Amino acid sequence: MIKLGIVGYGNLGKAAEKVIQKTPDMELVAIFSRRKVVSLFSTPIVEYDKMLEYKDKIDVMLLCSGSATDLPKQGREVIENFNTADSFDTHALMPNYHRDMDRLAKESKHTAAIAIGWDPGLFSHTRLLFQSILGDGVTQTFWGKGVSQGHSEAVRKIDGVKYAIQYTIPKEEALDAVRTGEKTDLSTREKHLRVCYVVPCEGVDTSKITNTIINMPNYFADYDTTVNYISEQEFFENHNSMPHGGFVIRNGEANGTHHSLELSIKLESNPDFTASVLVAYSRAVARLAKKAEYGARTILDIPSYLISDKSLDELISTIL
Amino acid sequence: MIKLGIVGYGNLGKAAEKVIQKTPDMELVAIFSRRKVVSLFSTPIVEYDKMLEYKDKIDVMLLCSGSATDLPKQGREVIENFNTADSFDTHALMPNYHRDMDRLAKESKHTAAIAIGWDPGLFSHTRLLFQSILGDGVTQTFWGKGVSQGHSEAVRKIDGVKYAIQYTIPKEEALDAVRTGEKTDLSTREKHLRVCYVVPCEGVDTSKITNTIINMPNYFADYDTTVNYISEQEFFENHNSMPHGGFVIRNGEANGTHHSLELSIKLESNPDFTASVLVAYSRAVARLAKKAEYGARTILDIPSYLISDKSLDELISTIL
Repeated sequence: MIKLGIVGYGNLGKAAEKVIQKTPDMELVAIFSRRKVVSLFSTPIVEYDKMLEYKDKIDVMLLCSGSATDLPKQGREVIENFNTADSFDTHALMPNYHRDMDRLAKESKHTAAIAIGWDPGLFSHTRLLFQSILGDGVTQTFWGKGVSQGHSEAVRKIDGVKYAIQYTIPKEEALDAVRTGEKTDLSTREKHLRVCYVVPCEGVDTSKITNTIINMPNYFADYDTTVNYISEQEFFENHNSMPHGGFVIRNGEANGTHHSLELSIKLESNPDFTASVLVAYSRAVARLAKKAEYGARTILDIPSYLISDKSLDELISTIL
Repeated sequence: MIKLGIVGYGNLGKAAEKVIQKTPDMELVAIFSRRKVVSLFSTPIVEYDKMLEYKDKIDVMLLCSGSATDLPKQGREVIENFNTADSFDTHALMPNYHRDMDRLAKESKHTAAIAIGWDPGLFSHTRLLFQSILGDGVTQTFWGKGVSQGHSEAVRKIDGVKYAIQYTIPKEEALDAVRTGEKTDLSTREKHLRVCYVVPCEGVDTSKITNTIINMPNYFADYDTTVNYISEQEFFENHNSMPHGGFVIRNGEANGTHHSLELSIKLESNPDFTASVLVAYSRAVARLAKKAEYGARTILDIPSYLISDKSLDELISTIL
């Protein structure tokens, strides 16, 4: 049995808890949070600062806090005493986060899997395979239509915001043009709209919130972003599910012949799927740590069979 | 520079030679063949039995002979003196081939990558990720419309066959039913047709050929197979390109929400694409052998970043 802990009990943490209940080779030992929370499955809730009492009782900590502020700080703290898996998703800060986590993990003899989810994650891995196999070509990624947890979280952290949700929407005409190979050089701004629905706190200046959102580096500054202010009632009536999805498309040539590769995913719930990826990769973390392969890994450098609950021999017989 | 050799100079070998010409970090040293062949690019042609003269002059041998008979024999011979990459594709014989190649490679301190292509290969890897992430679901693979090299080769080896080509065709209604999640238990026979076009040698009994084809284990016995006999002229006029493609589709649940994952590929030339995969993975073989990681690997247990011509740091900055 792989013994897991969850750090942070928001959407992702709750989804991870549910996934673990259905995963026969895993056991959830405790949830760590700075807030007063109640587990959906009577999992023990432990204060974040008392985590050290669980050293050696947990094989892998799933870091489920938001990327915008909590996760990068907690990752650097937790890795000192535990193996970790996280879905850190701020692309621009990735090299720095990877470098720190790799150093801290090696110093403390732990293994970290960072940026595990679908993008970064499954999509990154697909981009790697597509571009390595078909060197002469162009890869384009589309996201949505769906809710981005990271972007919603970033908006929620803004002063004066009570509730917020962010939808990423692929532009249909751009998707068609890329699929046929007609367009090869679209920017992310040309491919997507970002639409925010915000419930402001009473009496705040919404123009200030709008300004903060549309100028937020890495998250919104490079996109066509619209911000809508709605009531709390409308928010809970119309924006309570978290679908997502996306496309990785590569068109390219080999020896003068044309090849099209496409991965597409449609997710009814982004946190449920992201948690599923995170839990699968925690299996790889536990196995790598057991083999003393310390340091930070990404989905790009984790041998994929390590995430399966089946042996390599069984995989070779059944799906190779 | 990674120094490569090619063993077998049919469609796949020729395509691999072309791909290597366009790959800046690789160099083709020689082509090994039992037949008298002429290289498209003035690559030295060496008799198969004189391969040993190239020991230590070649980092990785690409094994490009047919899976039906030549490749499994040559793989077991060549691995004794060289690192290898092959696209062995007889699913039923895979565990045995893997076991032998692993043992021979470890004994002789070499590294082999076996079953590298798109199926087995990219599709196998996709099945692994899909099923490991979304444990509660069903994966279905479709092939075509396209020419299967392995199956065409198997038909060509039959006594009395002069030329032959085999098309695999997905049944449209089956594809639709699987994509919507309506059907989850279709057999390969229910999903595909196999259509062969054969030019017989003069005066042979075609009913005997037909019988051999439709009863061939692993290749045709489990499928709806039709065999058409055509003239040499028609063969070269209408059957001279080798398109292929396919779909890996998984529908599944996580925490009660539904998720659909699909990889689809459209290939104008199967050998050009398969050669591209094989050449990319030869980079991983060279790197693993350099690190003394001997034995047989598959696409499932090769860390994917090893196939890229970019460093892991660059990949983390650019595509993670």
